[in-house]
Amino acid sequence: MRLAVVGFGGVGQAFVDLLLLKRSYLYNEGLDIKINYIMNSRGGVYSPTGIDCASLVEFSKANGDLSQYKNGGSKQITFESIMKNKDIDVLVEMTPTNKETGEPGMTYIERALEKGIHVITSNKGPVMLAYKRLNKLAAKNGVQLGIGCTSGGALPTVNGGLIDMAGAEILSIEGILNGTTNFILDEMAQKGVTYDDALKKAMDLGIAEADPTLDVEGWDTATKLLILTNILMNEEKTLADILVEGITGITPEQIEKAKREGKKYKLVGRTENRDGSLHMTVRPEKLDRGHPLYSIDGRHKAVRYVSDTLGDLTLSGGASGVTPAAASVLRDLINIYRGYRYSI
Amino acid sequence: MRLAVVGFGGVGQAFVDLLLLKRSYLYNEGLDIKINYIMNSRGGVYSPTGIDCASLVEFSKANGDLSQYKNGGSKQITFESIMKNKDIDVLVEMTPTNKETGEPGMTYIERALEKGIHVITSNKGPVMLAYKRLNKLAAKNGVQLGIGCTSGGALPTVNGGLIDMAGAEILSIEGILNGTTNFILDEMAQKGVTYDDALKKAMDLGIAEADPTLDVEGWDTATKLLILTNILMNEEKTLADILVEGITGITPEQIEKAKREGKKYKLVGRTENRDGSLHMTVRPEKLDRGHPLYSIDGRHKAVRYVSDTLGDLTLSGGASGVTPAAASVLRDLINIYRGYRYSI
Repeated sequence: MRLAVVGFGGVGQAFVDLLLLKRSYLYNEGLDIKINYIMNSRGGVYSPTGIDCASLVEFSKANGDLSQYKNGGSKQITFESIMKNKDIDVLVEMTPTNKETGEPGMTYIERALEKGIHVITSNKGPVMLAYKRLNKLAAKNGVQLGIGCTSGGALPTVNGGLIDMAGAEILSIEGILNGTTNFILDEMAQKGVTYDDALKKAMDLGIAEADPTLDVEGWDTATKLLILTNILMNEEKTLADILVEGITGITPEQIEKAKREGKKYKLVGRTENRDGSLHMTVRPEKLDRGHPLYSIDGRHKAVRYVSDTLGDLTLSGGASGVTPAAASVLRDLINIYRGYRYSI
Repeated sequence: MRLAVVGFGGVGQAFVDLLLLKRSYLYNEGLDIKINYIMNSRGGVYSPTGIDCASLVEFSKANGDLSQYKNGGSKQITFESIMKNKDIDVLVEMTPTNKETGEPGMTYIERALEKGIHVITSNKGPVMLAYKRLNKLAAKNGVQLGIGCTSGGALPTVNGGLIDMAGAEILSIEGILNGTTNFILDEMAQKGVTYDDALKKAMDLGIAEADPTLDVEGWDTATKLLILTNILMNEEKTLADILVEGITGITPEQIEKAKREGKKYKLVGRTENRDGSLHMTVRPEKLDRGHPLYSIDGRHKAVRYVSDTLGDLTLSGGASGVTPAAASVLRDLINIYRGYRYSI
């Protein structure tokens, strides 16, 4: 399979590293992967017979301007030139997330699908804004749209609901979908510290981002819940349909009280049918000891699906970081290679 | 897709019921399923245009001898006649398990694969004895072998390892793979009763079978562990490679002591690499509170995979009984319809 990697930040670089690491695995699978393009906002590299990735990775660690790369680097390599050359099978779309317009990823994904090119994206923007439309576009053009990375990375939330629950109707979704907030709540419960102290520790450890707003105010969880709900329950909801409350107001007293009751606070994203209509919430919930998400601690994530005929399924685990995220992109690539039709 | 259902016990009947129940789901999926044959040991029913399942299910509830069924029932319908007519796409093989020879399922599966017919089986015998060979036979003939039902039923242990971990190497498997023994151990811990009393309760509730030997002595767990190890780690192990110890010797004193230590006994099936060779065990293990399988109680099952690049994944849940088992067969059917190649 011939790939273009568009967007070359941490996950993109980890993806190229991973392909090098997994060379023998892929060979055994019968999967011959060539990367014909790697592009970022400053330019790109092109080789019609496959880029020498080991050499490029070394270069890119020292120099972010791919257009300076001696073997094929050029400012002239644009997305349109990729579309024009027609020498790729899969677009790996990894540009930064824009939750308002989805751009530039939205246009890249549309253009590729229209040209009959499979797309795998790590970009939440286009998926949360227009999954149904993009998926139909893929189906219409006989190609696949892989989005596993956008909702939990290594934790296979999408495959878990789509493939592992095939033939069953998903009645509700509940998940601990953000590792940072789960770490903070766990830290507060274990050490009895304040929210601010726990957040500071998460930042010191590199678990929380420099601006943790999207995590702690619940929007990262909401975005993932939105993606899962739209895909697995065939909805077209938006962020505005979700009641979102973060964890910034949680006090040590609340945590302590929950502990005395044998419970734990978790930031839960939840979609369920009540009184005939769908309710979507993200908020701190006090979970009982018997709840399947009760024991998900530290940075771990988990999601639980309740279905009609396959009972319930909880998936937990999934490592954090750029390599596991890249591995979730590779997972989609392999499953598409193995014939799975995400877009029907 | 045109099916033959061979073997028509509890799961087979539940499968046919499920297809009736799921008619609109399948229609929306674009999947038109016709059952051309239903066969058990006394004969069968054939309709070249699809059996009227509602009517047949009603008949079969009153009369186990399908050959007496007025619309197409006959003693002359044999497996060979199905092979000869060449009017099915999928064999749903549900004959009783024989762990020594795999027959009659083994021959049925081989014959169908050789004829270019997909096979989905709920029969552990052929899968534990010859998965690799059968899978190669499927690949050679361009068809798929679905075996999800044989290792955990509704709990998607096979898909979880094969699809959700695609691209990663599975380094170890550990699972609570038998609901009956998990119920018994949980009952002993919760109520402080003896093994015999807990077993009696499990039998009274219909959780344990009349002859619970295979469950309580660990062989059901061992069989599932064997299937998962061979498929997910590309091995050709046999039951003789597994060190198996059941739960019959566990005393209330041991359970009580574990409880005081904050631990729980669970019957764990485990495959792991130690000192460069693969070790497979089934035995009661004392799990710490932090272990991902610690909180799997009652009749629940779970499996945990540790991988190189996708971190670890624990799948838990999965309902018990004939309908969830039938739903796991339907799951394989849908995933094969969606193009997934289990056999490459």
